[in-house]
Amino acid sequence: MNILLTLRILGALLLFLAAAMMFPIPFALIYNDGAAEAFLWSSGISLICGLALFKFCRSERELSVREGFAIVSFGWLFYALFGALPFLFSGAIPAPIDAIFETMSGFTTTGSSILTEIESLPASILLWRALTHWLGGMGIIVMSLAILPMLGVGGMQLFKAEVPGPTADRLKPRIQDTAKLLWGVYVFLTGVETVLLMFGGMDLHAALCHSFATLATGGFSSRNASVGAYNSAYIDWVITLFMFLAGVNFSLHYHALRGRLREMHRNEEFRIYLGLTLLAIAILIVANFGSVYESFFDNLRFSAFQAVSILTTTGFGTADYELWPVLSQYLLVFLMFIGGCAGSTGGGMKVARILLLFKHAQVQLFRLIHPRAVRLVKLGNTPVNRDVMQSILGFFALFMGVFVVASFLLAASGMDLVSAGAAVIASLSNIGPGLGSVGPTDNYAHIVPFGKSVLIVCMMLGRLELFTVLVLFFPSFWRK
Amino acid sequence: MNILLTLRILGALLLFLAAAMMFPIPFALIYNDGAAEAFLWSSGISLICGLALFKFCRSERELSVREGFAIVSFGWLFYALFGALPFLFSGAIPAPIDAIFETMSGFTTTGSSILTEIESLPASILLWRALTHWLGGMGIIVMSLAILPMLGVGGMQLFKAEVPGPTADRLKPRIQDTAKLLWGVYVFLTGVETVLLMFGGMDLHAALCHSFATLATGGFSSRNASVGAYNSAYIDWVITLFMFLAGVNFSLHYHALRGRLREMHRNEEFRIYLGLTLLAIAILIVANFGSVYESFFDNLRFSAFQAVSILTTTGFGTADYELWPVLSQYLLVFLMFIGGCAGSTGGGMKVARILLLFKHAQVQLFRLIHPRAVRLVKLGNTPVNRDVMQSILGFFALFMGVFVVASFLLAASGMDLVSAGAAVIASLSNIGPGLGSVGPTDNYAHIVPFGKSVLIVCMMLGRLELFTVLVLFFPSFWRK
Repeated sequence: MNILLTLRILGALLLFLAAAMMFPIPFALIYNDGAAEAFLWSSGISLICGLALFKFCRSERELSVREGFAIVSFGWLFYALFGALPFLFSGAIPAPIDAIFETMSGFTTTGSSILTEIESLPASILLWRALTHWLGGMGIIVMSLAILPMLGVGGMQLFKAEVPGPTADRLKPRIQDTAKLLWGVYVFLTGVETVLLMFGGMDLHAALCHSFATLATGGFSSRNASVGAYNSAYIDWVITLFMFLAGVNFSLHYHALRGRLREMHRNEEFRIYLGLTLLAIAILIVANFGSVYESFFDNLRFSAFQAVSILTTTGFGTADYELWPVLSQYLLVFLMFIGGCAGSTGGGMKVARILLLFKHAQVQLFRLIHPRAVRLVKLGNTPVNRDVMQSILGFFALFMGVFVVASFLLAASGMDLVSAGAAVIASLSNIGPGLGSVGPTDNYAHIVPFGKSVLIVCMMLGRLELFTVLVLFFPSFWRK
Repeated sequence: MNILLTLRILGALLLFLAAAMMFPIPFALIYNDGAAEAFLWSSGISLICGLALFKFCRSERELSVREGFAIVSFGWLFYALFGALPFLFSGAIPAPIDAIFETMSGFTTTGSSILTEIESLPASILLWRALTHWLGGMGIIVMSLAILPMLGVGGMQLFKAEVPGPTADRLKPRIQDTAKLLWGVYVFLTGVETVLLMFGGMDLHAALCHSFATLATGGFSSRNASVGAYNSAYIDWVITLFMFLAGVNFSLHYHALRGRLREMHRNEEFRIYLGLTLLAIAILIVANFGSVYESFFDNLRFSAFQAVSILTTTGFGTADYELWPVLSQYLLVFLMFIGGCAGSTGGGMKVARILLLFKHAQVQLFRLIHPRAVRLVKLGNTPVNRDVMQSILGFFALFMGVFVVASFLLAASGMDLVSAGAAVIASLSNIGPGLGSVGPTDNYAHIVPFGKSVLIVCMMLGRLELFTVLVLFFPSFWRK
């Protein structure tokens, strides 16, 4: 491990954060909400720390895989710590553990909140909250499509062959170029959604907050009742559409925007993702029919919004699904584990991994009947490398293991079974709302500090695909 | 598939069942409980059907792997159907779906019951109920230690190298000899427990019922309040000990009885099983301290009984653990997924599989740091064959998949989330009691017929290690 080089790059990332903290200041001044100073102080501290790290930590050596893991993990951690400063300095969130929870929830695009009253907060603070989502989403796109494949983690190495897209070793040789292309797509989609939401009656501030949270599949809203507060079919459908898009692999968007729609159709993960979305909506409509919604169009609108919001791990709400039939709730819990496509801003285990697990099990059954036949697991037309498959199976086991241990710790802190399990999966899959005491109309304020710390770790583990963080706990990682 | 040969062997199995149905008749006569005729009729029908199949289905060809799968799966199904006859004919369980549920629960050593009032049933019927456990346990030992390894399923092929024990290809060349050795151990342990329970004040009938249910890790009791009805520390500890023993690989018992105790110590799965048991008891004692039990010895006694009962998937109860703290309940739910050792009568995923999953995940993490290092997953000192590892990973994915689908179907039938999930895992891991409306003081009577059918399938899938049943659904299985 080259610690000096790692710290230097973390310093550079802090400088970027310091710049981002200036963005809400104009809003603070326009709305005259009194938070401008908090942003200046926060930005200043981040600037000084960033500069110090960047200047004083120098290293001649090249970046290797190990530094990659450390930069990604500590990068998110630093952002959660420094990003919490505006909440603390403005007084919006007085307790440090709460401020860190909220910020980690932001940067991991989870959307779990400890805030009980949102609308009374300064406008600029709400914008910063949404911006943490948006920056986190940016980080995730680059991480999952450019950095992690180089480190040998994550589902994306699958797509090197499948999608002749802007992954590190194909379209452009360097991370920066890949990042720029994908960020272009990300900014473009955010812009389109913002404009569409303003057509629906939102002001610029609200439209930005919701677009930031949608494209990052985050889920922080500037309203207490989330998107449901607008009670507008138009806004619901716009957000449903953009949540769905945010759950798609961003390489595919890139191709689509260049007119290569065929790539979308050829991509097996996208087809399954689309199919799952439609199936989930259909089941919800049937399950909710009669008991919840009188009109078919209301049923369609609310079912589609909740299904897409949970599957993409956004977590916006327009309905209290805890009042829905058990079957609907069960379906939503199941969707929580799946998540979006690999290479999207969505969390969860990812559609591709679930698909490959299913195919792996099928191949195992096939082998029992035909012991001498050779049958490989394929994604699309491409056989999946054996090492990748092993890694996915290991990921699944780890995901379940972390889920079990974390739920146990929350149960130990006194939460009931359903709430503990739901809080963990909502954090680990970066969704936001769960069930029970952390349901769509509740929040995370009532959880004890120990429980909040566990959930903070879960958000980070889930967002960074487990491996990235867990390798840091191997003593041999730090040696040499 | 050689259907004629399969049917012939199923016929032979029915003949054995017909003989077993005579066993409760002396008890029916002694207790004069009026059920003797029901057993005669049931035995006669099984005899005729068995004879017909055995006589008229002949085949020159040899037994192959495919027939093996079909015999195991349909064997359990036939036993559940024919074994239900005494319940129906005696009027003890009037509804066919209920009788089949109870019998499948018996032969799969699950122990879930649809009976609301047990003590008023004829003594011979209660003995038959326990006997279904015991026969099921016999079948499982042979299946897991002799038949499945030949078919390439299950965790036991692992032990071929690890335990130089009575597995098919080592100690004795043929299934029958292996079966006889292990059944000797099984009968011996059952006899010892029966005698010990009679010392504790049970009559022969009650002692047999409870021994049968213990060694099979079944859980049917002849008392409404399960083992708790005796309210005896001696009986609790005897049953705790024998439940623990029933969860151990029966090859190890065979070695231990021959004085080779070193084999137990050398066996990594056994060590982990022992460690898990002690850890679970310790956590329960801490969690229950103060809030439930005043005395340490009561706490130890009830914590140990419940922990061992759930981990070994027996399902006997001496305490209503739904009144325990959430942490204790969570721990028990977690234990439900694990189950006993491979080659025991216990259900669940098995300790060996969980252990290997954990090791696999660890190797995946290690490979990220040392991409060029070769590190194999080992059990004890033996490297685990790659195909076996793949099969275990596939098993895990399938187990979770079946859990999700079955819980969804139960939720669709109107059960609440916790009860649906608990009922499915209690069936799939062959435990018996779950949580919520199927908790330790409840039963399965209130579930709708559709839900009962789903659980019947789960019990069978779980008991036969999933693969054995699922291969039958491949069209290519039946071809040629």
